[in-house]
Order: sequence, then structure tokens, then C-alpha cells
Amino acid sequence: MAETTIVREKLDQAEGVLRALDIDVWITYGRETSDVAEPALPLVLDENFVWPGMVLVTGDGERIVLCETHDADTIRSVGLHDVRGYENSLEGIFHDAIESIDPDKIAINYSKSNNTADGLSLGLYKQLEEYVEGSGVDAEFVSAEPVVNRVRGVKSRTELERIQRSVDISHEILESMRAAWRPDWSEADVASFVHDEVESRGLTTAWHADACPAVDAGGQAEWGHAKPSDLTLPPGEVLHLDFGVVADGYASDMQRLYYRPVDGDASIPDDLQAAFEDVRAAIRAGFETLEAGIPGYEVDAAARETIVERGWPEFQHGFGHQVGRNVHDGGTYLGPRWERYGDAPEKEVLAGQVFTLELGIETEWGYLGQEEMAVATEDGAEYLTDPQESIASLGE
Amino acid sequence: MAETTIVREKLDQAEGVLRALDIDVWITYGRETSDVAEPALPLVLDENFVWPGMVLVTGDGERIVLCETHDADTIRSVGLHDVRGYENSLEGIFHDAIESIDPDKIAINYSKSNNTADGLSLGLYKQLEEYVEGSGVDAEFVSAEPVVNRVRGVKSRTELERIQRSVDISHEILESMRAAWRPDWSEADVASFVHDEVESRGLTTAWHADACPAVDAGGQAEWGHAKPSDLTLPPGEVLHLDFGVVADGYASDMQRLYYRPVDGDASIPDDLQAAFEDVRAAIRAGFETLEAGIPGYEVDAAARETIVERGWPEFQHGFGHQVGRNVHDGGTYLGPRWERYGDAPEKEVLAGQVFTLELGIETEWGYLGQEEMAVATEDGAEYLTDPQESIASLGE
Repeated sequence: MAETTIVREKLDQAEGVLRALDIDVWITYGRETSDVAEPALPLVLDENFVWPGMVLVTGDGERIVLCETHDADTIRSVGLHDVRGYENSLEGIFHDAIESIDPDKIAINYSKSNNTADGLSLGLYKQLEEYVEGSGVDAEFVSAEPVVNRVRGVKSRTELERIQRSVDISHEILESMRAAWRPDWSEADVASFVHDEVESRGLTTAWHADACPAVDAGGQAEWGHAKPSDLTLPPGEVLHLDFGVVADGYASDMQRLYYRPVDGDASIPDDLQAAFEDVRAAIRAGFETLEAGIPGYEVDAAARETIVERGWPEFQHGFGHQVGRNVHDGGTYLGPRWERYGDAPEKEVLAGQVFTLELGIETEWGYLGQEEMAVATEDGAEYLTDPQESIASLGE
Repeated sequence: MAETTIVREKLDQAEGVLRALDIDVWITYGRETSDVAEPALPLVLDENFVWPGMVLVTGDGERIVLCETHDADTIRSVGLHDVRGYENSLEGIFHDAIESIDPDKIAINYSKSNNTADGLSLGLYKQLEEYVEGSGVDAEFVSAEPVVNRVRGVKSRTELERIQRSVDISHEILESMRAAWRPDWSEADVASFVHDEVESRGLTTAWHADACPAVDAGGQAEWGHAKPSDLTLPPGEVLHLDFGVVADGYASDMQRLYYRPVDGDASIPDDLQAAFEDVRAAIRAGFETLEAGIPGYEVDAAARETIVERGWPEFQHGFGHQVGRNVHDGGTYLGPRWERYGDAPEKEVLAGQVFTLELGIETEWGYLGQEEMAVATEDGAEYLTDPQESIASLGE
């Protein structure tokens, strides 16, 4: 029941979103959801369905669960829903529920571009179509993607607290690594130290541990490829980490840079400092553009133009993705309008969405990548990370 | 790469199945499949897709993977497929592939009743429809459910070995419990002992550990409800366990009965023995009916009629489900033709499918449930469990 608070917050949020979008009912429909996740289900229900089950949410405050009687016993005990059980088939109780709601528009979870809003299987969709046709209701299906984008994307108070904690822990682990670092450590040794820190806290890495942290030791490292290698970091070069954890179900994601002093001299060479300032300026340009109401691609463009103006090649990825239950959360994307990103960069930023802001350049000292996290607000954005302002020195 | 052997066996199997069913190409299409499982994907690919990707299998031996270039690098290294990468969009390489296959029938993964054959999301289906319409191909979509039922349901040699091993381990753990049992053990103590045995082998229970094992101590236990309780087993009554493990990705599932001696006397009372013989007779009737080619409901009926003829109430569930990657695997079901089971009991048993055979009766000594596992063959069935022939005595 640990998630009851969040489900309560999300159901309240959904009610307002449905009214705003003029959608009469939002249906999340799944079965055996512990085997095949319905990514929208945890937003509206703190349990799994074994047998076929539905959650119906309306803008009028109805939160109806239709499910098999065994599933119903567990769900009823949570106390957030009007739970109605069936013995043999959903059809009868579905007809009763949908006829009493009598909707014109039924939102269902499908989306070409957003995995987290595409949890309805084709088989269950065909079943639902039959149920609706067999009812006394004349309604059209619409995509619930805008609903999911808002309800999942706009973080509740409890969710922001959890993401902040996940960020704080990542900071803490990276700082332990920096302090413990030794000159004979390979990329793999760095990763192994970080993994021990993650495990000792009973957490998991935010993505596959093979590449979390990603570790690039100096100018010889091949950025963006493969697992941490046997490379060690030469003096006067830069160690780059891309890292995050999942704590209490919420992820963090950041990149940090560390400098290996030369004969005890930790002062950063001027041209390295200048290159790093170019990266910072691009991150800052994106951050300053980020606010509720603008399309994602404009935030990307601000960062992209800045790095190019400063004479560096354009980064070959989007500037920022959402972070939440997944480290790469769907919906609005701070990316360029490239075909591979579909319409995600066209979508508007909403207040309460959490994004990464990330880019990097390849240099003789190593890959200079920076990645911060920020929450969008009505009039700007707030950092959740402590933005990296200088390249930290390795070792005590 | 541990699963390469099984994927190779399954791809070979799929080729024959597609020819037999006269399907030109079977497409499995997913994205972010480590977050949202496409249950058919592990049959044809030993990796996950991050970006949208497809596996196309034909009856002519083509095994084509279309995926994003980063995903492609990993998949190519496995060496089982013709892997074609894309940079921005699947569409172009999909058109090339589908036009060269030029199918009349494209099987896709949807099913109203079978979760394991219903992995295509509605959003990706709409995308696929567009891709096909935009190609030079004029084909109809059909459900791949019969393909999945055969490829997933009919176990390969390696799969049968793994299931047998999972069964053997469950037997071994239950025997340890029997030998270690003490009169002051509650249901919860029994479960806790079993969990330690599972964990010490580095395995997981076949379903949620809260109810695996299910433990019912004597006539006062409420069968089919709740977690193991504080009840202890009175002398002269029966302890019932429902238990299984997952080992190497394959499940087992069995029920066993144990008798608590009265003042050291382990002989089973005659009327308890007679009731147990009724259960055994019903299980045996089902087992003897099980063979390739008959519909599932006939196997159920043989067991159901036997228990009713012997004067006991009809069991309120199906007689047997498939076991494989999941402990409840979809497709052909040895169940009655009740609405809740959809058309699964109508489907034919295939040689190589693995089923549970299970039922029970409520008695004054406790719930007398028996559950065996058997693989169907062309002319009968073979037990994978050692069928329980007598109620074992608890303690050394």
C-alpha cells in the first residue's frame, strides 16, 4: 500500500485533466499486468489485475474498478475506488458502468510515439470495441495520450520529493567516487565502486548496470560505446560519468566531469576551461528557455544553437527527456524535429514535468558531457540537481 | 546469450508452424520491451528493443530483424538473424523487407483471450497499418495466436529439460519440508522454511511468494484464501501445499498432501484414504484423457465427472493450465466451457504442451488437493512429476 498516496494524488490530478480535455471517461484495461505491464495502470491503481480488469476515471470524480471477484477483494481493501467484481465476464458490469456514465468520448491508452501511453493491447481493444457496441452507448474512442502525458508527466508533490531524493543520492554516490578515486583505477574500477555504493544502499541503477554508470576516461575513450573498459585516466584529462539510480520507484540521471591533476596541480588548463564553459552555456541556454507552454523543440534549439555558435559540432541526440518512474519517460521531449522522435518534440512543456538537460562535446581531454535535471514551472524552471559549475578534481 | 539455444529451437519450430498454417510472415513488433514486455519476443529474439523494432519470420527460413542501429549492434552479435538497422525510421527498411516477402497474410500478435499472444499495442498496430498501406504490398492481417500457441506451447527439447529440472527442485524442496516439519509449526512457519530453501538455491517462487507455497493446515484452514496463517496442524489431519519454483526461466507447479500422525501412528484412517483415492481417480481420469488432438474441455470433463460421480462437489476452476515461461501459460486450457475461460478450453491439445492436472475437495481432515504436471504426446501423456500415490507422513 506504499503507493496509495501517489495513486490518490494521480486520481485527483486525472479528474482535473479529464475536465480540461473534455473527455468523459478514461479507461485503462489490462490483464496479468504483473507479466505484461500496462504502464498507465500504476497511475490509477496500486495493484495488478490477474484477470481482465478496467479502471474507469471521469471528470466528475468517479473512480470505478471492474474486475474479477478475487482481484476485487484486494483492490477494495485499498479504499480508493468504487470496486465492482464479476464472476465470469466483465461484459455485464461494464455495460452497467458505461451506460450510467453515458460518454461521448472514451479515452483509451494508445499512442504511436509514446510507450507509456500505449498500454492497451490490440486484442483487448477489439474486446472493448465489442463491449461498447453491445451497450446502449454511442461513443467514439480517442487516444488517452494527452491524459497520460499530463497525469504521468506532471509530478505530484510526493513524486517531486522522491525524484529529489533520487537526485540527492546520485550526487552523494558520485562524490564518494570522486573522493575515493585512485590513479590506477580503470573505467571498470570506477563503475565497480559506483555499483557497490548503489548496492550498499539497497537501490538499483537507473538503467542497465552494464552502462550505468557510463564511464569515459580521457581523450582515448570512445564516448557512447560499450561498457566501461580497462582504460585508466591520464593526468591532465577528464573523467566523464553518466549515472542515476532508482529510489522509491523514481529515477535520477546526470552526467559529471572530473579532472585528474598533473603532478598535484589541479588547476584546469585554460582551453579546457573554455570548452567546458561552452557546454555550460548551452545547457544554461536550454534551461533558460524551459518553461510551461513552449514546445519541446524550442528548448532543444536554444541549446543546439548555442553549442554550434561556439564552434562545436551539433550533438546527435535530443537535449532532454522526461524523468520519473522511468529514467526515459515518454511524452513531451526536448528534442529536434527529427523523424525518429515523432511528434514528441512538438508537444508543449507543462509545469511540473521533470526533464534532463544534456549535451556534450568530444575533446582532446575527453568527452565533456554535462547533464542536469530540472522541473518546469509556469514561469521558468528549477534545477533538481546542483548544476556542475566547475570540473571537480579527482581524489581527496 | 544463455537463451540462444532456445531461440534457435523456437525459430526452427516457427518456420514449420508458419508453413503448416499457411501464413506468409509473422511479425513481432515492440519497443522499450524491457519496460513493457512483448511476450512473444523472447521466442524469436534473445534481446530487447529500446527503439521500435520488428522480428519477421517466414516459413521459408527468413528471420529478419529491423531495428535502430544501436539495438542492431547487440542483436547482430547473437548471429541468429538477418539484422537490418535504421537511423531515423523503420519505415524504409520495413518497406524493403515486406515488399521482398510480398505476403498475402501477415500474422500479428493479438488475441482477446490469450495474454501471451497479445503483445502488440494498439498504437504500434496503427503504425504498422500505415507502413503496410504505404508499401507496395496488398496483405491482410491475421491473429498470430495459433502461431504463438504452437511455438510457445509446444516445448523444445531444451525447454522440457528445464521444466523437468524445475519440477525436480520443487520435489526436493517439498521433501526437505516434510522431513524438517515440527508439530509446533504454523502455516507461516512452513512457508518460511520453504522460502529459505528457494532462496538458498538462488531461485524464485513460481508465483507471488505471499501465496507460494499456499499452505492449508487441516480442517480449520480456509482453502483458497489469504496468506499462510498462524494455524498449526492438529494430529490426524492433513497439511496441503501448492508450490512451484522458477529455475532457468521455467516454472513448476504442484500440490502435495501430508498427514500428521496421531501419537506416533502414521496409518491413514480408512475414510481419509477413500477420499484421497477419489481425488487420485479424478486426476488419473484426466491424465488418461490427455493426448494430442483432443480439445481441452474434454480432459477437464473426464476429471470433473469422476469427482462428481464419486459424490463430491464439482471443483470451481479449470482442471489444468499450461506451464512454461509462466506458471500460468496461455493458449489451450484444460478447463470447462465457462464464459470466463473464453475459447481456450475449445483449443486442441498439441504434443509437447505441458499442463498441470489439479483438483481438490474440502474434507474434515483438510483440503485434499492434488496437482501433477504432464506433457502431452501423440498417443497419451507422460508425467513430469512423480504423482502422489499416498499421503506422506510428516517428520522423520
